[in-house]
Amino acid sequence: MSVVTREDLLEWDRNDPLGPMRAQFRIPAGTIYLDGNSLGPMPRTTPERVAKAVEEEWGEDLIRSWNKHGWIELPQRCGAKIADLIGAAAHEVVVADSTSVNLFKLLAAALRLRPDRRVILSDTGNFPTDLYVAQGLIELLDKGHELRLVEPEKALEAIDDSVALVMLTQTDYRSGRRHNMAEITSKAHGVGALVLWDLAHSAGAFPVDLRGAKADFAVGCGYKYLNGGPGAPAFLFVAEQHQNQVRPPLSGWMGHEAPFQFDRDYRPAAGISRNLCGTPAILSMTALDAGLDILQKAGMTAIREKSVRMTELFIELMETHCADFGFELFSPRDPEIRGSQVSFRHQQGYPIMAALIEQDVIGDFRAPDILRFGFTPLYLRYGDIWDAVQILRDIMTEGSWDQPKFHKRQAVT
Amino acid sequence: MSVVTREDLLEWDRNDPLGPMRAQFRIPAGTIYLDGNSLGPMPRTTPERVAKAVEEEWGEDLIRSWNKHGWIELPQRCGAKIADLIGAAAHEVVVADSTSVNLFKLLAAALRLRPDRRVILSDTGNFPTDLYVAQGLIELLDKGHELRLVEPEKALEAIDDSVALVMLTQTDYRSGRRHNMAEITSKAHGVGALVLWDLAHSAGAFPVDLRGAKADFAVGCGYKYLNGGPGAPAFLFVAEQHQNQVRPPLSGWMGHEAPFQFDRDYRPAAGISRNLCGTPAILSMTALDAGLDILQKAGMTAIREKSVRMTELFIELMETHCADFGFELFSPRDPEIRGSQVSFRHQQGYPIMAALIEQDVIGDFRAPDILRFGFTPLYLRYGDIWDAVQILRDIMTEGSWDQPKFHKRQAVT
Repeated sequence: MSVVTREDLLEWDRNDPLGPMRAQFRIPAGTIYLDGNSLGPMPRTTPERVAKAVEEEWGEDLIRSWNKHGWIELPQRCGAKIADLIGAAAHEVVVADSTSVNLFKLLAAALRLRPDRRVILSDTGNFPTDLYVAQGLIELLDKGHELRLVEPEKALEAIDDSVALVMLTQTDYRSGRRHNMAEITSKAHGVGALVLWDLAHSAGAFPVDLRGAKADFAVGCGYKYLNGGPGAPAFLFVAEQHQNQVRPPLSGWMGHEAPFQFDRDYRPAAGISRNLCGTPAILSMTALDAGLDILQKAGMTAIREKSVRMTELFIELMETHCADFGFELFSPRDPEIRGSQVSFRHQQGYPIMAALIEQDVIGDFRAPDILRFGFTPLYLRYGDIWDAVQILRDIMTEGSWDQPKFHKRQAVT
Repeated sequence: MSVVTREDLLEWDRNDPLGPMRAQFRIPAGTIYLDGNSLGPMPRTTPERVAKAVEEEWGEDLIRSWNKHGWIELPQRCGAKIADLIGAAAHEVVVADSTSVNLFKLLAAALRLRPDRRVILSDTGNFPTDLYVAQGLIELLDKGHELRLVEPEKALEAIDDSVALVMLTQTDYRSGRRHNMAEITSKAHGVGALVLWDLAHSAGAFPVDLRGAKADFAVGCGYKYLNGGPGAPAFLFVAEQHQNQVRPPLSGWMGHEAPFQFDRDYRPAAGISRNLCGTPAILSMTALDAGLDILQKAGMTAIREKSVRMTELFIELMETHCADFGFELFSPRDPEIRGSQVSFRHQQGYPIMAALIEQDVIGDFRAPDILRFGFTPLYLRYGDIWDAVQILRDIMTEGSWDQPKFHKRQAVT
């Protein structure tokens, strides 16, 4: 077993090339934040960026800021920054709306490209809102489409020529298990199906290669690993070859070829911009833009390298120092198929997580019994991981999680 | 003709009960802002409110803020404040997404409530995105629905029992002409049709009485008269009696009965909340919340009284001081059927508006020849109206609008 010590890890931190990035984030004193996969923390540049958008751009330049400060192209500018992180071309990504709304747009668009097929294939581990959105679209279309759910491990083999669209979240939100994007996409294309990837727990967590995998469509979230702030706008990707075939179901003026001509008939803009709908939420998008700049500086290769080292370390420490407390690894042991999070199952997962949070070690709980820990190399230190495991060990040793206050059920986002 | 003088108007300002409200907004020195119907100016409380949401709530309390600072109920809290302004009950309004996206939701929901009918009736003066969204939905549904457009004056008589839904913007975005909400809604109900009102240029501009008119559905904009900031989230209204009949086509997790149970099947929440979809844009919504608080303090009756006085004054001054320059009133002369804006047509409208903006009198231009001026009683003074008309008169007298720089075509949002 491990002979690593706290001192070793402090040494790792001193030698960490990403170490200086931590200063770019506000992490409350004493907090070990293992929930950046749910809501990334605030970059230190964000308050000033947002204040400038509010006070200078909106406050001083008013309506003129749509041109003067480039608000009108902010969705494309942010999209190009995200494209860098996910292996897409700059003109293949745009920021808009929420992940759920973007998913609806691309699901509907994809089904139209396969009018003779009726199956959306997904897996039982998909994030629920993805399934809900598909269910809502199917009910709306009322054309006998089917949402076919299989166990995640069966997704590849379930792809056949009845499938119009494979809709998967690449990284399982509970376990962190990663689908093989290239293999699944390739098999789908082989039988004439399209593929839509939800990158909510991928973008900014590790390098994604949409172009390499020849992915058709993707959506993703702005407020997790991209550190864009609560409810930050989401993004969507449409591969170049599909862009002018896509008919946006949410055909709003910002996706019109000439929004300010005020024509009565909708004509989609060329390229990715047709997937915009209403007026973009500039203040929230400005915060996202600030988060993206930091990721661009750090680079995804360095992030991934540290992420693997951190998740490996956490598993090792848990299995060394918390071996006796009934935790069961829920994430894949192989880092190759694991995102940037590690989850453990425990029958008393809910009160244990509540006790951890009380000690300022912030992870989260997912029903029925999953303790979920996100590892975000930009602001997390190896020493934090050591301390988190020790605090958990103390909680388990003392049984302090087993207090009534930790058993109260409450919303955990 | 008028014998009102600038001195009279300064006296009006001194006696204006809403006069003190102006101090609650940041209006750049020397600017006469007649574009609050496009993008409302920044309330002075907003920077601090947004900074608190960024630095204290997000920065310090992180993920816990969903509960601790009530982010999770912000859509409903803001909705209740808007309800006060539009004659709805608090539980009938929620803030979410953009106007276009909300329109899609309610259009789709309304058509499902009238499955045997195929006509959406609207008018040729409707804001283009409303028409685009209807066109996109019709194409998506592929069930032979028709978007039937009539001249605004013919809307009432065009309502017959083929109509599933009457979809109108209450206040014409170009002319400010108001439809009679109660009369149209009543006729529609008489033939079994539903009515959806777009309140983009109504909410916050004058008292709206959705309940009094027995309206079925409504949507509206957060960044115009509500002063919520660029691209502020929009709102939607569903009358109580329809709420649990509505099947949301954008069925995301925030509209689920139990979002944090992570069930695989969508079950809509009871009431208005089912019309939420993805995670709300908290930072943008916080700015909207600040804008709403000011409107609540001022009260819509006082706002309307001053608004009528201002639009009457502007028409009178234009027809007195700018009578010789070829402006033609495009808005209704009767304030009873006019919103809070006044438009004039002029063949050279575009360069004239550009010259006005150059002089910091900010209105906007709408194709093909409309100069549009918004009158927003919270921060506009009677003296400003005098000055704006004099500046326009000087521009016309000198012919200074007729310079090449003003003829360059550019996007005007």
